[in-house]
Amino acid sequence: MCLAPVAAGAEERKRAREIGIEIGVIAPGPLNAITDVEGVLVGHETIVEGDGVHTGVTVVLPRKDVWDRLVPASAFVLNGNGQLTGMPWIEESELLGFPIVLTNSASVGQVYDAVIEYLFRRDPARRAGLQAVVAECWDGTLNDIRRRAIRPEHVFRAIDGASGGAVAEGAVGAGVGMVSYGFKGGIGTSSRRMLPENGGYTVGALVLTNHGSREQLVVDGVPVGRAIRDLLPEIHEDSGGGGNSIIMVIATDAPLTARALQRLARRATLGLARTGSTAHASSGDIAVAFSTAHAFDRRGGAILEIRTLDPRELDPLFDAAAEATEEAIVNSLTMAETTTGFRGNRVHGIPLDRLLEALK
Amino acid sequence: MCLAPVAAGAEERKRAREIGIEIGVIAPGPLNAITDVEGVLVGHETIVEGDGVHTGVTVVLPRKDVWDRLVPASAFVLNGNGQLTGMPWIEESELLGFPIVLTNSASVGQVYDAVIEYLFRRDPARRAGLQAVVAECWDGTLNDIRRRAIRPEHVFRAIDGASGGAVAEGAVGAGVGMVSYGFKGGIGTSSRRMLPENGGYTVGALVLTNHGSREQLVVDGVPVGRAIRDLLPEIHEDSGGGGNSIIMVIATDAPLTARALQRLARRATLGLARTGSTAHASSGDIAVAFSTAHAFDRRGGAILEIRTLDPRELDPLFDAAAEATEEAIVNSLTMAETTTGFRGNRVHGIPLDRLLEALK
Amino acid sequence: MCLAPVAAGAEERKRAREIGIEIGVIAPGPLNAITDVEGVLVGHETIVEGDGVHTGVTVVLPRKDVWDRLVPASAFVLNGNGQLTGMPWIEESELLGFPIVLTNSASVGQVYDAVIEYLFRRDPARRAGLQAVVAECWDGTLNDIRRRAIRPEHVFRAIDGASGGAVAEGAVGAGVGMVSYGFKGGIGTSSRRMLPENGGYTVGALVLTNHGSREQLVVDGVPVGRAIRDLLPEIHEDSGGGGNSIIMVIATDAPLTARALQRLARRATLGLARTGSTAHASSGDIAVAFSTAHAFDRRGGAILEIRTLDPRELDPLFDAAAEATEEAIVNSLTMAETTTGFRGNRVHGIPLDRLLEALK
Amino acid sequence: MCLAPVAAGAEERKRAREIGIEIGVIAPGPLNAITDVEGVLVGHETIVEGDGVHTGVTVVLPRKDVWDRLVPASAFVLNGNGQLTGMPWIEESELLGFPIVLTNSASVGQVYDAVIEYLFRRDPARRAGLQAVVAECWDGTLNDIRRRAIRPEHVFRAIDGASGGAVAEGAVGAGVGMVSYGFKGGIGTSSRRMLPENGGYTVGALVLTNHGSREQLVVDGVPVGRAIRDLLPEIHEDSGGGGNSIIMVIATDAPLTARALQRLARRATLGLARTGSTAHASSGDIAVAFSTAHAFDRRGGAILEIRTLDPRELDPLFDAAAEATEEAIVNSLTMAETTTGFRGNRVHGIPLDRLLEALK
Repeated sequence: MCLAPVAAGAEERKRAREIGIEIGVIAPGPLNAITDVEGVLVGHETIVEGDGVHTGVTVVLPRKDVWDRLVPASAFVLNGNGQLTGMPWIEESELLGFPIVLTNSASVGQVYDAVIEYLFRRDPARRAGLQAVVAECWDGTLNDIRRRAIRPEHVFRAIDGASGGAVAEGAVGAGVGMVSYGFKGGIGTSSRRMLPENGGYTVGALVLTNHGSREQLVVDGVPVGRAIRDLLPEIHEDSGGGGNSIIMVIATDAPLTARALQRLARRATLGLARTGSTAHASSGDIAVAFSTAHAFDRRGGAILEIRTLDPRELDPLFDAAAEATEEAIVNSLTMAETTTGFRGNRVHGIPLDRLLEALK
Repeated sequence: MCLAPVAAGAEERKRAREIGIEIGVIAPGPLNAITDVEGVLVGHETIVEGDGVHTGVTVVLPRKDVWDRLVPASAFVLNGNGQLTGMPWIEESELLGFPIVLTNSASVGQVYDAVIEYLFRRDPARRAGLQAVVAECWDGTLNDIRRRAIRPEHVFRAIDGASGGAVAEGAVGAGVGMVSYGFKGGIGTSSRRMLPENGGYTVGALVLTNHGSREQLVVDGVPVGRAIRDLLPEIHEDSGGGGNSIIMVIATDAPLTARALQRLARRATLGLARTGSTAHASSGDIAVAFSTAHAFDRRGGAILEIRTLDPRELDPLFDAAAEATEEAIVNSLTMAETTTGFRGNRVHGIPLDRLLEALK
Repeated sequence: MCLAPVAAGAEERKRAREIGIEIGVIAPGPLNAITDVEGVLVGHETIVEGDGVHTGVTVVLPRKDVWDRLVPASAFVLNGNGQLTGMPWIEESELLGFPIVLTNSASVGQVYDAVIEYLFRRDPARRAGLQAVVAECWDGTLNDIRRRAIRPEHVFRAIDGASGGAVAEGAVGAGVGMVSYGFKGGIGTSSRRMLPENGGYTVGALVLTNHGSREQLVVDGVPVGRAIRDLLPEIHEDSGGGGNSIIMVIATDAPLTARALQRLARRATLGLARTGSTAHASSGDIAVAFSTAHAFDRRGGAILEIRTLDPRELDPLFDAAAEATEEAIVNSLTMAETTTGFRGNRVHGIPLDRLLEALK
Repeated sequence: MCLAPVAAGAEERKRAREIGIEIGVIAPGPLNAITDVEGVLVGHETIVEGDGVHTGVTVVLPRKDVWDRLVPASAFVLNGNGQLTGMPWIEESELLGFPIVLTNSASVGQVYDAVIEYLFRRDPARRAGLQAVVAECWDGTLNDIRRRAIRPEHVFRAIDGASGGAVAEGAVGAGVGMVSYGFKGGIGTSSRRMLPENGGYTVGALVLTNHGSREQLVVDGVPVGRAIRDLLPEIHEDSGGGGNSIIMVIATDAPLTARALQRLARRATLGLARTGSTAHASSGDIAVAFSTAHAFDRRGGAILEIRTLDPRELDPLFDAAAEATEEAIVNSLTMAETTTGFRGNRVHGIPLDRLLEALK
């Protein structure tokens, strides 16, 4: 790891690599984002209203037409104090036919309903296949979660606005109100590109971080959380909290069965472990992995033709999933700025200068 | 579109035991219903509006204060083309802290949000622990499912009106629009009471039936579906269907761990098998089991004191869970009346005279 | 069901169809055996020594060269009081690279070691990939199980002698000492052949039955066990029992992913349910399913080319798996003859005349 | 971390803490070993014969009389290229009634049979409950694995010699021939003792390490494997390998349900992740956790009285399980000495001086 000089403005936010933190040994893709997996789209809708509402929606679409062209997918629950709707059908069919929508814990119903509304508007003939995929973290420290502020239009805009290219990180979309390791968390992303001899595939991760306690935080192997003991969340009034969670989305263009994708989802949690988490009891630590290498028509067909990687030959992908997840988590911290929200509660962005100091 | 007149002789509805069909060998409880398990409450809200809307909500509460006093629970997915929100947290915590709410596939989001709204109204301080438990079947043959007709008040009324005592069955609550084995299905319930030497415990089942094809139907071992080949659903216009499913709720007052309750949930599917189902690919066949023998405060406590049945001594409960589920399914058929709904589609109640004829 | 006339010699053993019992609606393959799936081999080694030893080994090979050419596979544990070695690797790799070997509970180690010995003799270069697949039932009522009478040669002969064609049933191979529903059980098999419009695939089942209590027994929907209450096992001295189990092996030539095979394995347990079982707590009720449509080289390869059935189009296979399992269980009973074994314990074969009488 | 001075003899072996490597923040128990959990016994049998045979057996007994007094237990498979016999019954009954026996991949059958033999000798009346618990790693680089050198007496001695107190680590017992991160691995152990306010419970870990590639190795957050690129295994002749794995045994005296123990087993894999592993495809990464707080009679009983920790209050135990596993893995490396075995293959013990240098 090479520590680049950085101007120490407390609120300058940069990605980990921009300040010299290089996680792992595999090279990232050009954007170092889940969108390096071709066809994957990400959309954010950030909702900040007055002092109290700091929440939002983030969507990941495996492909623009995922509603009609399903992709192989699987999910892994490391610790289940979280919601991932739609999971039984993903596991049974080995397919994902919905955007993965991330939001706050109290708005799962609103968001679910908005996804169905969107689907019905999009396809006037659609009457079946209605199992929306919504995951959540609890943002009640910074967000007046009881207001359930998410409207259908928020969800529609997140989906319609989803795009490839660079992904906004930190306090954005579903990440606006999230807290991770006692610092401001939120959205982070990263990617890894295999060497040509390993197939040249790309693995991308996008995380919504809201987990962990300060003393646990590890960055690139260094127990940074023990070095920066101040700047804890300033809770002006008890928020009745709360739970904390991390949702990890893994995308790849490698041709994989759903079962192999389950294995990738599990490796995401190994990347999580390297940032210090032990998946606390009140945490919903859930990973979803999908492959864009094949798509299957919603209407089904008698025979599917699949090319898949040998289940015994997946190590480079495993390494990539762990590394990309670890770096995505760090990015969610280094990119999230200090936020004051509900009841004046204040959560600090990790100070980059002190982070680099601790890493020396 | 108008509702065709129906001859009322054909439509006399009775429970299986009332017409002499006795499933299994264990005696039912006094109500032969899930509410034989003391403290369990059931509420229905039936929603029929004009020609198109035939849907509803059914709730099962393990106890009135389940929001604050959680009970051991577990779920089993036989085939996952269905939704059961809240499942990861049930599995992880071994506890259920929400009513189990059954509804139609397109209204999961609406119902989920209404449960959260209800919770917030009920408890002004509540800000966390927000993982509602909603399961669904697809009622789009008889219900204009795209209308998403369920309002928060429907859910509130179902919860507030939930009670012990006899349980309405057939085309009621979430069961209004359901179709099972090509006959009108919906809600069914049954119970079994152990002998004193087996502990005297009660096991109750409540099902929402929307599964199976006609030729599969077996009643008390007899392939009735092959005997009654007419009276198939009259589909006047393709409903773009659809999927079919069964949700099975198992309650008991026996003291059991969550893992042992998982085993009861699995036995529910053996009862299902005896009615002819092979859990078709488009079916969401999901069982949830809970015990009322203990309740745990939502806020937690360092040590829980549990008395539990030995995991090796559960056979009478297994038998009871299978029998009660089988009989509940039959009750859902014999109690559901012929219904004409969306687009004039018409689904016949199983004719009791011909059923008895076939059973002779 | 058409009841054919049968000569009433108590010990005449016939297959269910030979005496007019026709389970289900799908036609069997030409042998009505698991070996109707082309390439599948079955071998038995029956070990009867003196009064006490009544045990054996039964092997199912997906293909002769399964050691080097692996096939997609999956397993499902309905109730886990049983052993299935090798399961983690099957589930992880989605592949089976060993014969499935059935035996008695005390000889799992012996048989496991013999399989490794066989493998080493067969392939002098082989040093890795050593996870033998052994399943068991407890035959201690008829077999002096403490003697652990199985020698390597027994296993070698079962493997070397494995063949296609008709399969011996009843008190043969691993089934010699087994007891099912209080009658003599053991090995049974059956198959189903899909219609051409459903792909023309074959599904075969082979079971080792040692499960259930008499009063539970149901044959073709009729509670036969309640009709034949005598002829219970004559236990001259307490055998310190015991446990009871059923191992179900499902084979198909349909191209399926491991996950889809898991679904077939689950349907086997629905067939089991129809014979009356509720999977008692002391029972190891385990199903393994494999497909012969593809084989993958043990050494691996970067890309596997797979044609697979759409995961949403499997209903005919599900029906077939349930039916074939149900019929295989019945065959295991109707083919097993009255056996006197360890300590003079005596277990009766189900009397075919009384069975047919009960079915009328 | 404080780096204590150490004499740099290449083959001086010390535990991590002896050379100043302190993993995590929770204090170890007095022995820093799994045997800090009262009643837990560990036994080793090391088998070195001539040049070729370098293998052995290690047993962990939750209690001396575990054969008759079962303890709550659960297992978690992170990656399944490994064997853990007995797993279905552990999961179903929530109980463990056998020693956990670790050995090499080719000797699982031998060891399994020896455990049954031991049980039969120990209890002349025992005829049922015969599901031995055997796990394995592949030691074929240093061991002539085809010889299957383990005799029943080896297993008997390991069990009979099992004791509390300090635990031998490194190239001992089942660890004699194991290789981890390209260094000599084997047996390692560690423990953590909760603060009184967290209940004062102890969590212990014992690992058999045979996993990982050199470049992955991380010690206390530092990518040591990238710093020490030489001293790779010297393979004089291709060993036809082989697979690599890690078995993790977690013990605690905290009163826990089996489901809660499953959560501890999962946290062991988070500790594994921190040593650099991504659970490669050919690895059998399996964790088993048990509690000594309760014991249940083998014969069963209608009601079990359990005191258990609230499933929502387990964080200190989770942290402890992760930390103890991580440290146990490091101990397995720092305690294992350079070994020359089969075909002259040579695997180096990690040089402690260079390790400390890298950690500076």
